[in-house]
Amino acid sequence: MEPTRPKTLVTAGEIVVEIMATEVGQSFLEPGPLVGPFPSGAPAIFIDQAARLGQPCGMIAAVGDDDFGTLNIERLQASGVDISAIERIPGVPTGTAFVRYASDGSRAFVFNIPLSASGHIRITDGGRALLERADHVHVMGSSLFSPAVVAVVREAIGQVKARGGTVSFDPNIRHEMLERPGMREALREILSACDLFLPSGPELFLFTQARDEAGAVAELLRGGIRAVVVKRGAEGASYHDHSGQVEVPAFPVREVDPTGAGDCFGAGFVCAWLRGASPREALTQANACGALAVGAKGPMAGTGTARDVHALIASQKEVRP
Amino acid sequence: MEPTRPKTLVTAGEIVVEIMATEVGQSFLEPGPLVGPFPSGAPAIFIDQAARLGQPCGMIAAVGDDDFGTLNIERLQASGVDISAIERIPGVPTGTAFVRYASDGSRAFVFNIPLSASGHIRITDGGRALLERADHVHVMGSSLFSPAVVAVVREAIGQVKARGGTVSFDPNIRHEMLERPGMREALREILSACDLFLPSGPELFLFTQARDEAGAVAELLRGGIRAVVVKRGAEGASYHDHSGQVEVPAFPVREVDPTGAGDCFGAGFVCAWLRGASPREALTQANACGALAVGAKGPMAGTGTARDVHALIASQKEVRP
Repeated sequence: MEPTRPKTLVTAGEIVVEIMATEVGQSFLEPGPLVGPFPSGAPAIFIDQAARLGQPCGMIAAVGDDDFGTLNIERLQASGVDISAIERIPGVPTGTAFVRYASDGSRAFVFNIPLSASGHIRITDGGRALLERADHVHVMGSSLFSPAVVAVVREAIGQVKARGGTVSFDPNIRHEMLERPGMREALREILSACDLFLPSGPELFLFTQARDEAGAVAELLRGGIRAVVVKRGAEGASYHDHSGQVEVPAFPVREVDPTGAGDCFGAGFVCAWLRGASPREALTQANACGALAVGAKGPMAGTGTARDVHALIASQKEVRP
Repeated sequence: MEPTRPKTLVTAGEIVVEIMATEVGQSFLEPGPLVGPFPSGAPAIFIDQAARLGQPCGMIAAVGDDDFGTLNIERLQASGVDISAIERIPGVPTGTAFVRYASDGSRAFVFNIPLSASGHIRITDGGRALLERADHVHVMGSSLFSPAVVAVVREAIGQVKARGGTVSFDPNIRHEMLERPGMREALREILSACDLFLPSGPELFLFTQARDEAGAVAELLRGGIRAVVVKRGAEGASYHDHSGQVEVPAFPVREVDPTGAGDCFGAGFVCAWLRGASPREALTQANACGALAVGAKGPMAGTGTARDVHALIASQKEVRP
């Protein structure tokens, strides 16, 4: 087999700083200890993970002309992400997400995203140049919060598919977002354009009539999707295509912070898939990225390098020969 | 002298939460320890202080439909502020101000205010009812960041002055704000409408030809202002009107957090002035409010009650007979 040029992966969407309450059960109705700002945003975490695995990649996004924008751009650049399509918009703040943790493990947020710089995203000259090099577009459902982002994603998908490129889609959506006007339609449009669909647990059924996993997968594959990857966190993950299915268990891990684990899983899978890895290999890399992510505090604190991922996989082969 | 109805004091402007870096010299370019959210915003601190001194008062403002809006409204209500003119705007975030401290005592901020709910302030039915009861309007220069706020302030001043009411004005403005289009004009308009002008140190010269204090005060009084109060922090304060001037030294205090001290000073002065206190009495109450404010961490943490203020004044009389 002749060596192939590594594929260029592009995503588009929100960049935010995350501010975390440090105590479980803390409220945002009175002052308390916090920690941050952490670089964050689901597509930003995804692309940071992809870059740290060595994938050529870039992001179409917008930040404010403030420290929080600088923090994110510096982090992505240090990880190897092409930042030439990230615009700085004066007078508009970088997005923010305050998160607190309840004792049952659930999270609650105070967001400023649609009215932050992320809501003003557009394809700049840098974005056009990036899309001309792109082989694959990854879309996060969380990014479809404004018509501006939907327009950018639609344009990116159109250009890349027209040149024979591919698309992956992680619905990654909070339930309340589904009720926004146009949200379901936007998600359905991306679904119909994607090659690879990566739902978390019950997100598999977001757009299916079937209520069981086999039925839902069959329905999605009949609809034209090439492969479905179901993420189940600590329960591992499964891959489904026309030729069958593969299950791979999760790596055992002590959970420190779940934020970003699904995004890192997605990057691990997509990067392996783009280089032609087998479904089992791709799921294993994805699970390793997810495990490294939940083991570190901070949305991007656990994005592992290829070396970290290989070391984790090798260590598990020793204990599970 | 027959007992008079206490006057009703109204302000309008920004409500924000403040998030503070806990270490001196901390950066916002990497994660670090923070504390917050604290209720804040210069006019909100001012009106909180006024309410805690027992003044009938209310605020025209807007917050988002989020925890940060609830936090602020609950705080102001608990202090006795009439909150019926504070609107909650769904889908728009409450303003935020992140502050960090340099080793030289200076502060640096990351703000989201003009594009927060505070930028969408308007006079609701609650605001109209509040203005019908109002005897005095206090304006903070920091609030004139958007045409919406300028319009509200202009309307409030017009209504209250038409009924024989009075206006106080604290320029309270960061230098970079002066360069915004329309900012100098808005400040000049408020200045020409005010009875009581309360600049901090060099703000005295913002709108004067004269470069010395006596000359600047004379120029302002000739322009129609009834009294000028110059705030000098730890150096005390002075009062100037056509009949002369009064100086009152500051209370000795260990500075914990300067945020809000000028706003509390202003409320202390205006509340005393509204009940007809002498300039010396008003400056003393103002200095006491400022001293209590700098002694506590958090923008509203040091707003004292009338009892706190009287206790501080009495304690100082004992040591300085």
